Amino acid sequence: MKEQLIQDLRALLGDEAVLTGDAVTGRSAGAFRPDSLSAYALVRPRTTADVAEVMKRCAAMGQPVVTHGGLTGLVRGADASPDELILSMERMTRIEGIDVAGRTMTVEAGVTLQQIQEAAAAVDLYYGVDYGARGTATIGGGIATNAGGNRVIRFGMTRASVLGLEAVLADGRVISSMNTMMKNNSGYDLKQLFIGSEGTLGVVTRAVIRLHEMPASQCTALVAATDFDAVVRLLKHMDRKLGGQLAAFELMWQAYFDLVSTPPAQGRSPFAERYPFYVLLESLGADQEADSVRFMQALEEAMADELIVDATVAQSLDQRDALWRMRDSVEEMFKFGKSFNYDVSLPVSEMRAYADGVSAAAKANWPQGRCWIFGHMGDGNLHVSFSVGDGSDETKHRIDEIVYGPLAAFRGAVSAEHGIGLDKRAWLGVSRTEEELALMRQLKDFLDPQGLLNPGKVV
Amino acid sequence: MKEQLIQDLRALLGDEAVLTGDAVTGRSAGAFRPDSLSAYALVRPRTTADVAEVMKRCAAMGQPVVTHGGLTGLVRGADASPDELILSMERMTRIEGIDVAGRTMTVEAGVTLQQIQEAAAAVDLYYGVDYGARGTATIGGGIATNAGGNRVIRFGMTRASVLGLEAVLADGRVISSMNTMMKNNSGYDLKQLFIGSEGTLGVVTRAVIRLHEMPASQCTALVAATDFDAVVRLLKHMDRKLGGQLAAFELMWQAYFDLVSTPPAQGRSPFAERYPFYVLLESLGADQEADSVRFMQALEEAMADELIVDATVAQSLDQRDALWRMRDSVEEMFKFGKSFNYDVSLPVSEMRAYADGVSAAAKANWPQGRCWIFGHMGDGNLHVSFSVGDGSDETKHRIDEIVYGPLAAFRGAVSAEHGIGLDKRAWLGVSRTEEELALMRQLKDFLDPQGLLNPGKVV
Ligand SMILES: Cc1cc2nc3c(=O)[nH]c(=O)nc-3n(C[C@H](O)[C@H](O)[C@H](O)COP(=O)(O)OP(=O)(O)OC[C@H]3O[C@@H](n4cnc5c(N)ncnc54)[C@H](O)[C@@H]3O)c2cc1C
Ligand SMILES: Cc1cc2nc3c(=O)[nH]c(=O)nc-3n(C[C@H](O)[C@H](O)[C@H](O)COP(=O)(O)OP(=O)(O)OC[C@H]3O[C@@H](n4cnc5c(N)ncnc54)[C@H](O)[C@@H]3O)c2cc1C
Repeated sequence: MKEQLIQDLRALLGDEAVLTGDAVTGRSAGAFRPDSLSAYALVRPRTTADVAEVMKRCAAMGQPVVTHGGLTGLVRGADASPDELILSMERMTRIEGIDVAGRTMTVEAGVTLQQIQEAAAAVDLYYGVDYGARGTATIGGGIATNAGGNRVIRFGMTRASVLGLEAVLADGRVISSMNTMMKNNSGYDLKQLFIGSEGTLGVVTRAVIRLHEMPASQCTALVAATDFDAVVRLLKHMDRKLGGQLAAFELMWQAYFDLVSTPPAQGRSPFAERYPFYVLLESLGADQEADSVRFMQALEEAMADELIVDATVAQSLDQRDALWRMRDSVEEMFKFGKSFNYDVSLPVSEMRAYADGVSAAAKANWPQGRCWIFGHMGDGNLHVSFSVGDGSDETKHRIDEIVYGPLAAFRGAVSAEHGIGLDKRAWLGVSRTEEELALMRQLKDFLDPQGLLNPGKVV
Repeated sequence: MKEQLIQDLRALLGDEAVLTGDAVTGRSAGAFRPDSLSAYALVRPRTTADVAEVMKRCAAMGQPVVTHGGLTGLVRGADASPDELILSMERMTRIEGIDVAGRTMTVEAGVTLQQIQEAAAAVDLYYGVDYGARGTATIGGGIATNAGGNRVIRFGMTRASVLGLEAVLADGRVISSMNTMMKNNSGYDLKQLFIGSEGTLGVVTRAVIRLHEMPASQCTALVAATDFDAVVRLLKHMDRKLGGQLAAFELMWQAYFDLVSTPPAQGRSPFAERYPFYVLLESLGADQEADSVRFMQALEEAMADELIVDATVAQSLDQRDALWRMRDSVEEMFKFGKSFNYDVSLPVSEMRAYADGVSAAAKANWPQGRCWIFGHMGDGNLHVSFSVGDGSDETKHRIDEIVYGPLAAFRGAVSAEHGIGLDKRAWLGVSRTEEELALMRQLKDFLDPQGLLNPGKVV
């Protein structure tokens, strides 16, 4: 039966559209992954109509399908078993058009974040979403995971940048909602169903994304603080003083900053002393000279008010990039063997208590272990990572309990931005009620009654 | 049977919670409406649990329910027939709390926009959504209609400000998704189902809304332009020069500006000449002195580049308010008898052709009639209004055709912000595909199989 499907799909889409055998299993399972793909076939459509045909045939024979973008997802959301068929967006990479006056771009799902950023920049426009995986992550994957990244305080999650969407349902129906306007209240906003649902409710094939005018100024600083309350006040202070231009507020606890600023890491602290907290701040504005003056003033006031005790402002693009490289050097953690990485969110006012609790529990259980905490504090999002010298499933489970256990009391979320995938499915109940979980399952049954799309993920 | 339900609800919620007879029919049907309510009962719950109990009882006997906020909706979305029961949010008016560090407010659905704005201001915070109906419109109504307003370019529609939501389904189940974080990708984002679905998929009972730091500066100008292309370039120019601080870009065609700036209107044009286009511009920033300088510079550049031909900058709050009052004087239209008002959106680059076509068609059909066009151009949203000396249904239908007919070709939307309600249901197909409409109806059946919630609205 699988043979027949493969033949049918080859006849329909051409031979080079359907890979099997080594051509599939020889491929990596994705970013930071040692394993390779195990699906029995990988189909590479070129158009929405292709995807619809594939889904119709799969629906007719009950064939489960897993959609692949750039495979940079971090929660095993794109894992496919040998029984499953992969639908890869790798040949749907066309930028269909840019409306410079309307400030929108129409793209196929396989276009990468970086391609979007570059195409926008070529006409002096700007895409508000950015994260480390930009060279490989696709817009389809970004939409499916509602990806966040470095500029959420200013431009929101991916959801905020999606104006229009085209998706194929499990039964092959095409839902084309390619709206290009900022405002459209004409009936239910169906695209929301597909944003952030990790490929379990539909295959995203095309999108209209919102662009902004290209910022003409950028100011970046690394600052140090001695207590957490001061950091909370700093966030409010900078946000207010920059009048909507604050674009990043990245907090690093000492252990993480030490990791990325001492050998073997390449980064170096600009400060003579060590501090409990470091924040990487960035603003995006319109006038470099005037904005720099304002940014410096805001920092000086923060210093005078003792919100921060040390600061360095990037004087060049190189210095700016060096500061961001430190912040982004997560791979330094991997030098200590297997690490366990989490992506939670919780109210800013609860972060300190939560972080202290998690660190203490880690120390109590693994006195020699390491625990690193950092994140997009401006968005309530903390990344918590552990390396405890043991990568077993049992250890993972114990750490899961340390990280997720206290979250319910703080009304936090088990995933701030990476999603649920397979990894966090067991913990979803920490952040969602029974009634919510039941409704999610019903929604899944409603849109995909056979359970064909990305089976076993999320719900 | 209805008698029994009323008795049950009185026993459950108290006598003063259930109004009937004159207490209902003596009430106005809402803003700008000459008629009064006709439902047989009006129930006033105090809590989500109350709403859940009401819905359970109504579901058991197949009783349709229409939810009422402030009744400022403009599309007959809250109309209730004598067979229907009204669920009014008028006693759910508690502001439950403000998290100053997290910049969120937790409210019951009946709190008004203005109460939210004032409570936020009291702790130096700011709610990004604002529109004329602020004193009466409720947050529940704003969420149900995904209301837009005057600052959408900067802060987005209501959807962008809703972090958490609690809703009661048609069967009385409570879906509580009271998230307080900017980032939460833990499973499907169920709240999106209820935002903008006009009370047809659930009753919104509580919400967590996002606040911003209070802007410390405001610059407002009225400018004039002679051609539309220049206005398009002005939008891009100002947006870029103000680096994210542009908060309003309100376009008025000459006929509308004349209407609101000549007697009997109170407003007066600050300009000696008349121009084809007027734009009310506003920025919100952090430093009045520096921001004013920047705002003036941006306008001077626009003048030098011939994007604008005249400009006046508000020098005081009074002058600012006077400019906005002109823009908001929609009631001047009502002096010419029955007016028909539309709220469409379309790509900025198509607006000129669309507006010319609509005006010409109106002139051809009603040489003595009037056609006024204005709107939130920064969001692609135009308000188009007509007064043609005849308020008949047949005339309305002819105007509907003039307004909605050409929209499909421009890929516009029949409702930018007011929603569909009863008024635009017949025209929904102009902006949405057959497949979308079918999925909307399925979604309605899925969440409300008996069709109890706001029957006949939207789909
Ligand atoms: C170095 C690095 C940094 C990162 N930083 C961030 C960050 O800051 N913020 C953040 O949010 N994430 C971050 N991520 C995670 C990841 O980049 C995002 O989740 C990204 O959006 C995934 O895109 P992708 O194309 O690689 O999707 P994939 O990994 O291929 O797929 C991810 C999920 O989306 C589904 N999917 C993919 N394409 C489609 C489609 N067209 N239709 C339907 N479903 C689809 C898949 O089935 C899977 O469930 C980072 C990852 C790496 C490796
Ligand atoms: C002077 C004026 C100016 C306006 N300006 C704007 C503007 O700029 N932008 C804009 O978008 N709108 C505008 N409106 C329209 C209107 O104010 C909005 O639609 C507003 O959000 C309606 O809120 P409400 O509480 O009055 O809702 P209602 O009129 O009571 O109800 C509107 C719809 O929402 C449903 N509903 C109400 N509450 C709930 C609830 N708790 N749960 C579920 N469903 C509910 C109703 O059933 C109905 O379908 C304006 C109206 C007026 C009168």
